[in-house]
Amino acid sequence: MTPTGSTQETDVQQIRDLVATWATATEACDIEAIKPLMDEDILFFTAGHEPFGSDAFVQRFIGNVQQLCPKVRADVREIEVRGDLAFARTWLEVTITPPGSEPLKRTGYTLAIYRRRPGGPWKLWRDANLV
Amino acid sequence: MTPTGSTQETDVQQIRDLVATWATATEACDIEAIKPLMDEDILFFTAGHEPFGSDAFVQRFIGNVQQLCPKVRADVREIEVRGDLAFARTWLEVTITPPGSEPLKRTGYTLAIYRRRPGGPWKLWRDANLV
Repeated sequence: MTPTGSTQETDVQQIRDLVATWATATEACDIEAIKPLMDEDILFFTAGHEPFGSDAFVQRFIGNVQQLCPKVRADVREIEVRGDLAFARTWLEVTITPPGSEPLKRTGYTLAIYRRRPGGPWKLWRDANLV
Repeated sequence: MTPTGSTQETDVQQIRDLVATWATATEACDIEAIKPLMDEDILFFTAGHEPFGSDAFVQRFIGNVQQLCPKVRADVREIEVRGDLAFARTWLEVTITPPGSEPLKRTGYTLAIYRRRPGGPWKLWRDANLV
């Protein structure tokens, strides 16, 4: 991770980079590249499920995503940084192609809160996935 | 609306009050009491739908909620205030009782960003509903 800056512009770019790294790592089925992007107290929220943390995310990734290596387009539409927290809204397009099937595309937004602990980089802290 | 304070404690209480007012107004089918709680640029996010603003919220409220006047329990589980923005996670229990039917209960979280414009009160600005 690169050192963190103190200007709003730097913060915004670092969060955009985090989102891009996450998407690239998902396409590459590379869970090890995603793990350091998660805050230690991260919580994911999805419709119809209980919130879950990093361990459950890793298990889901290995169990589901890694079978199919989705194509991911992630477009950050809005970022607001306030101190050690930042809010971002990202438009996602996720395409999976099951063996012998046509590609399945799903689109929608995530609303996320990023957090930067003292001396550390920005990490994902709360994630509401409406895709 | 009461004047806004400048302490974190005051901010947190004002946001809790807003959530409670919203729940009470929903139970009372009182859309007029909800309108002033919405920021002018509010966006609602729900699974499987495009984001929508205050006008669409009002139409949905009149079209759906107002038929059935749900019972609402809203429990704010987490609030973080940073300047003019605040993040809150709220657990909701919404129960409707269609005529001649058993009560239908749905539960889940909302992740929301509240915003306080200069000189104004806290209002809801971004709302991801995973109930």
